[in-house]
Amino acid sequence: MTTTENTLRNGVDTATLFATLDAVKGDPEIAKFQFRASNRWVSGTHNRSTIHDFHGAKQEMAHREPFTFDADHPPVLVGSDQGPTPVEYVLHALAACLAAGIANIAAARGVNLTEVTSTVEGDIDLMGILGLDDQVRNGYQGIRVSFVLRGDDPAKLRKVVEQSRRRSAVYDVVTAGVPVSIDVDAG
Amino acid sequence: MTTTENTLRNGVDTATLFATLDAVKGDPEIAKFQFRASNRWVSGTHNRSTIHDFHGAKQEMAHREPFTFDADHPPVLVGSDQGPTPVEYVLHALAACLAAGIANIAAARGVNLTEVTSTVEGDIDLMGILGLDDQVRNGYQGIRVSFVLRGDDPAKLRKVVEQSRRRSAVYDVVTAGVPVSIDVDAG
Repeated sequence: MTTTENTLRNGVDTATLFATLDAVKGDPEIAKFQFRASNRWVSGTHNRSTIHDFHGAKQEMAHREPFTFDADHPPVLVGSDQGPTPVEYVLHALAACLAAGIANIAAARGVNLTEVTSTVEGDIDLMGILGLDDQVRNGYQGIRVSFVLRGDDPAKLRKVVEQSRRRSAVYDVVTAGVPVSIDVDAG
Repeated sequence: MTTTENTLRNGVDTATLFATLDAVKGDPEIAKFQFRASNRWVSGTHNRSTIHDFHGAKQEMAHREPFTFDADHPPVLVGSDQGPTPVEYVLHALAACLAAGIANIAAARGVNLTEVTSTVEGDIDLMGILGLDDQVRNGYQGIRVSFVLRGDDPAKLRKVVEQSRRRSAVYDVVTAGVPVSIDVDAG
């Protein structure tokens, strides 16, 4: 095997991954991150977020470019369909976090992946957000994620998914909740 | 005032908004929606979601086009920075949901908006997801949303934000949590 084969698995640079773990073990302050998004209302239910800078590894950092995303409602929900609904972005975030964890954990365990796909479904009864039934919650009542994995031994692949679930930031946020504060400057 | 001025406020077609509310009151089945995302792993922490079809108003529906979104980690988190991290998409979803609610609720109340912007910050300690400290949660420890609103009377604007928070689907998901099931087909 060449050096490349030793350190790169599933597109994950495992040497850098383990070096990062060692660095954090040596200085836990490196692990304190703050992520950010800024949003600007456009019109009606259409608005646009920009994701660029963040704090981590004891310094201000930024993505290679500002990423912008439009959110809107479809016409059936009185919008102009300039982007997905906010609740759909949550499903994307959940799938993406679990998939990234699967790739990293598989690489760290020496498990090869050839395919990882998922579909995520979330059920929501709009009687809640429309204020028509106080017994109905505003958010999803349940979310189902269905993964298809191909690669090494199926039993190992299943364990990788389980470990990704156990270590997923978005899975934790979506299942366990987070305190959210809202400040308003109304001039 | 013209008819247009009567029904369109903040870019929200209030006549259609109220008609939708009446339709749902008449047949609560209309309010049962299912949203979906599909995700495909690309390499390492880079993966891509597609958001297109959904179920609502008693029928299969679709956005005007498939929307695709890349997620990745930045280099400091051993990724190739092909998109925001999954946890950043959660911040975008939260800001977008609150902003859409603000526009709708303001329109329904006859409150004019000229500007709605927000910044969202989420603090996360990666000792959790790295498996280095079991006392640290995987997800955000807290999220702060800061809104700036301009338009009509500031007191009315503040009440609109509060009502949007009370009726936001993503705020509910992020603060209260949702049951998530994960199935795996490992072949």
